[in-house]
Amino acid sequence: MVNETQHTCSASSSSRSDGGSSSGSESSKDNSRCSTPVLDADRHERLREKMRRRQDAGDKWFSLEFFPPRTANAAVNLISRFDRMGAGGPLFIDVTWHPAGDPGSDKETSSMIIANTAVNYCGLETILHMTCCNQTKDDITGHLQKAKRLGLKNIMALRGDPAGEEWEEEVDGFNYAVDLVKHIRNEFDDYFDICVAGYPKGHPEAESYEADLRHLKEKVFAGADFIITQLFFRPETFLKFMKDCQAIGITCPIIPGIFPIQGYHSLRQLVKLSKLEVPQEIKDVIEPIKDNDAAIRNYGVELAVSMCRELLDSGMVHGLHFYTLNREVATTEVLKRLGIWKEDPRRPLPWAVSAHPKRRVEDVRPIFWASRPKSYIYRTQEWDDFPNGRWGNSSSPAFGELKDYYLFYLKSKSPREELLKMWGEELTGEESVFEVFTCYITGEPNRNGYKVTCMPWNDDPLATETNLLKDQLEKVNRRGILTINSQPNINGKPSTDPIVGWGPSGGYVFQKAYLEFFTSSEIVTALLKVLKKYELRVNYHIVNVKGQNITNAPDLQPNAVTWGIFPGREIIQPTVVDPVSFLSWKDEAFALWIEQWAKLYEEESPSRMIIQYIHDNYYLVNLVDNDFPLENCLWQVVEDTFELLN
Amino acid sequence: MVNETQHTCSASSSSRSDGGSSSGSESSKDNSRCSTPVLDADRHERLREKMRRRQDAGDKWFSLEFFPPRTANAAVNLISRFDRMGAGGPLFIDVTWHPAGDPGSDKETSSMIIANTAVNYCGLETILHMTCCNQTKDDITGHLQKAKRLGLKNIMALRGDPAGEEWEEEVDGFNYAVDLVKHIRNEFDDYFDICVAGYPKGHPEAESYEADLRHLKEKVFAGADFIITQLFFRPETFLKFMKDCQAIGITCPIIPGIFPIQGYHSLRQLVKLSKLEVPQEIKDVIEPIKDNDAAIRNYGVELAVSMCRELLDSGMVHGLHFYTLNREVATTEVLKRLGIWKEDPRRPLPWAVSAHPKRRVEDVRPIFWASRPKSYIYRTQEWDDFPNGRWGNSSSPAFGELKDYYLFYLKSKSPREELLKMWGEELTGEESVFEVFTCYITGEPNRNGYKVTCMPWNDDPLATETNLLKDQLEKVNRRGILTINSQPNINGKPSTDPIVGWGPSGGYVFQKAYLEFFTSSEIVTALLKVLKKYELRVNYHIVNVKGQNITNAPDLQPNAVTWGIFPGREIIQPTVVDPVSFLSWKDEAFALWIEQWAKLYEEESPSRMIIQYIHDNYYLVNLVDNDFPLENCLWQVVEDTFELLN
Repeated sequence: MVNETQHTCSASSSSRSDGGSSSGSESSKDNSRCSTPVLDADRHERLREKMRRRQDAGDKWFSLEFFPPRTANAAVNLISRFDRMGAGGPLFIDVTWHPAGDPGSDKETSSMIIANTAVNYCGLETILHMTCCNQTKDDITGHLQKAKRLGLKNIMALRGDPAGEEWEEEVDGFNYAVDLVKHIRNEFDDYFDICVAGYPKGHPEAESYEADLRHLKEKVFAGADFIITQLFFRPETFLKFMKDCQAIGITCPIIPGIFPIQGYHSLRQLVKLSKLEVPQEIKDVIEPIKDNDAAIRNYGVELAVSMCRELLDSGMVHGLHFYTLNREVATTEVLKRLGIWKEDPRRPLPWAVSAHPKRRVEDVRPIFWASRPKSYIYRTQEWDDFPNGRWGNSSSPAFGELKDYYLFYLKSKSPREELLKMWGEELTGEESVFEVFTCYITGEPNRNGYKVTCMPWNDDPLATETNLLKDQLEKVNRRGILTINSQPNINGKPSTDPIVGWGPSGGYVFQKAYLEFFTSSEIVTALLKVLKKYELRVNYHIVNVKGQNITNAPDLQPNAVTWGIFPGREIIQPTVVDPVSFLSWKDEAFALWIEQWAKLYEEESPSRMIIQYIHDNYYLVNLVDNDFPLENCLWQVVEDTFELLN
Repeated sequence: MVNETQHTCSASSSSRSDGGSSSGSESSKDNSRCSTPVLDADRHERLREKMRRRQDAGDKWFSLEFFPPRTANAAVNLISRFDRMGAGGPLFIDVTWHPAGDPGSDKETSSMIIANTAVNYCGLETILHMTCCNQTKDDITGHLQKAKRLGLKNIMALRGDPAGEEWEEEVDGFNYAVDLVKHIRNEFDDYFDICVAGYPKGHPEAESYEADLRHLKEKVFAGADFIITQLFFRPETFLKFMKDCQAIGITCPIIPGIFPIQGYHSLRQLVKLSKLEVPQEIKDVIEPIKDNDAAIRNYGVELAVSMCRELLDSGMVHGLHFYTLNREVATTEVLKRLGIWKEDPRRPLPWAVSAHPKRRVEDVRPIFWASRPKSYIYRTQEWDDFPNGRWGNSSSPAFGELKDYYLFYLKSKSPREELLKMWGEELTGEESVFEVFTCYITGEPNRNGYKVTCMPWNDDPLATETNLLKDQLEKVNRRGILTINSQPNINGKPSTDPIVGWGPSGGYVFQKAYLEFFTSSEIVTALLKVLKKYELRVNYHIVNVKGQNITNAPDLQPNAVTWGIFPGREIIQPTVVDPVSFLSWKDEAFALWIEQWAKLYEEESPSRMIIQYIHDNYYLVNLVDNDFPLENCLWQVVEDTFELLN
């Protein structure tokens, strides 16, 4: 928004009923199924309601602005940044609209797709910017329809920069942001929350500061829900602006746009684009240190922290909007120093909840995709309905095929060369593969001195929870039980437990021990003999790539392996081992051997043939120890298996 | 069936697909909602499938035949007998059809309504007998449609006794049982399981034993699923009959009808009706002791036990059908001695499951009706759908009004005089009422020497589980906390626990402590102060008859208070405290003061005014201690309340 322009306005209401044909049909669908326990009111509120609730509760919050990346690799990095910065608990993020970058297209770098990814794959409440000048009504409507289809619920309505030097009003066209606001309300009723831009110093093209305030009022009265401001350098600039807004009857939330200075050149460029003037006292500090990036950044952080403090202390400001310039360090530091960065905020469920409105009631998933949540979301994106409470008959909807292993939000964060260093330039046998798995578990460098920080099935290092099982996992991986997913048993830990807790406080969480691994048919043969002894206690599903399936589950029912008991709530069972979806997962899990690992090597090369051999001959095994109050017996099962083999 | 007659037959298949328009639409409705965990395969099988499964598993079983009572009071007694004998685990019961007693009507003594009550209110798999002679096709179809509507799934197809002495075939009418079998299959496809009668000695009116066997074969081939035989006196009679049936190609199950001799006169009458001859060896024993009822009954039990043993030992018999003559003692004793009476067989859920096909997936109910399950069933009989797994949006269907407190399956088993003895001929104040509650809890006689074995809210003596809380309950009732429902907290007891267990073995059951009581407004005022201390731990709902409602529940969500974790299953939460249905329960609970208690006394009498005062001024309170792993704090809450009052 930094370089956005805007002009005129008109009139409307600021609080509307949550009706509208689209949201109406959505809620009637909800009524036809079981209700979901509202674990986190957040999930069911619109952005403007969340904002209001946080304000009423006296909760301070922040939001983050990003721009779409230029390359696919940059997109992969931006998505990881969403995940990392999402951990701090922003109320929302927003993605700017770059008319030059085909912003409404399906390209992985488009504004639309980046916003879609943030909502659907990263679970972030997201505002998509949209500009209107030089576009036809149909184009705009098309973009809005697409945004709605993708589950986006919030639009930042902007004019955008005129094409030529001299800007001329178009008759019947979109000349001002207010035209876009009106259009959205006309065509989409109350479906979207609408944000508009405010200019604490007045828009550079406005006749006057006062005229600009009137334009802002018109935008609000046309149906905007809240305002985010252009950046400014002094807190008093914003506070004066806010009072002036209130004086003319603007009552919606006004969120100050904060720009932590991160470097000399970026500041200069920004100032040029936004036509703002940097106050002399800031110039005085910066000019002498302009070649010292670290010093400028430190100064920028100090400045931002002190300005934010002043804003928050004024009692007029509840949320802060950060222009991140797609960078992490400065903004994160400001937020941490302000104490509003909430690392690992209470998880409403043991997995990250998607922000797509269709998925807002989702509260159970098969355990198999625990380390590949984006793939799970991708493969279930066509579902009309998400199972809530029980896995139930949502096991019947087919999973989408996963052929696009290189979709930017599914692909490995590491380039081929790095993967080869981690997983081996040259494999000498199955044991080399065992070694890779073992190094991933232990975190120790491999024989060439590289740490294995990801695997085809796990894009991130071992989860803290899995770390509880590290010693046992190491032991079994060394011997060819190639683990890809596991959880310890838990018999009623507080829901606030820092490692295994989730859901509202005052509750208790439980787990059945789970272990999932690839292994050879020799080991499976011995394992099956051992499992006879554990028949009544351990459920198993054992399958090879051809789909040969061995199980002791009496029917196709799911087994709840994570559940929570909370005050005044129904039972929540967010993770299940579902035999039906296991077969879909099996295809994906086996294919990852080839798609992510074997294909690193030349065709016909010995390394590739080793991975191919494992793919063709190994079994995928999952084991559940149903007796969660007792000590996890799965390690004993594996030990007995090795004993039998000796 | 003892006095039934039958004649001719024809041809058909014995195993049919489970299709049919009616069952088809039923299953599609199932698909539109969450699946239910199949806790007990029994609940989802047709009678013929249950029979087959029990036979395949080598499980011996029994069934019980009853006839409809003549008076409403006898109906109340019969229903209690269903409940008591149902506890022994019959595979089914059957209710005979008495053409003279308006068997298809809505009278509480009709065959139809008794069968309906057995299925819906007692949760018993039930066969309704139906005879066809002297009835029009439309009458029969009407009866069958009604049976279907009421949830009956099994018909015993019989000819019935001709009206006059000399029986004549009607052209185009129903002349033989086989006509009825064919009619059922024509009109209702495979909806009903059909049973027909077999005569081990041949039907008295048949041309010959062989001709009668051929008639039986025709009935089976017309679509009957199994055969129950007329009574007989010697095991070899049945075993020969069975072999003869098999020899001519009858392969369906044949269940021997067992008649334990219970008295001289009933035997003589039966013999007359059934045109059977009592073997000389039996006559020789009975005649000398014909005036000694006890001796005859003992002999009858011995005889039945020894005959049943021989049948079961033959390996040809898997189930035994008992002609109870609506009596309990002899049959129960035979069954116990045979070891096939299974008192308290494993409960699939903590409450008795209804046998109505529409309710077969029901697996959660509000706790409030725990002691009044029949009222709950009555008030929800119009629901199309039963909540399964979660209470969910089934809290929206309205509860039916409960105005018919005197419906025979809802009314107290005790007559007015007995109730007065228990609850007081004359009340002198609220304290007299406290005393009644206290005596009910302790089991001690009241001041007039009578034990209080029921209350308006509890038709039966204290449950074993509630007994765990007896001491505390006594203490609080004495002081005016008039408890009507409670359960202790349970933190993971085995599902096989004899007192609190339910569901399949290998699981763990849990409960939150629950306490529900009436109490005065003075106590409520103090209680509310005390509850502030327990705000985060205890959920409460406090309401008076006018509906004034005080609660700390943040929203209208249900609180699961009973749940179970089982191997290879989803979580089951069969009991919830649901704030929405609590308001319906409140009306019923308050009305019971008036309907069942106040109305025992003359209008304007002091006793009646005391009850009326309580009804008008007391509050109904429910408390849940959410912290199930800790010691139940609800007693401390009550103690703190009394302390505050002092």
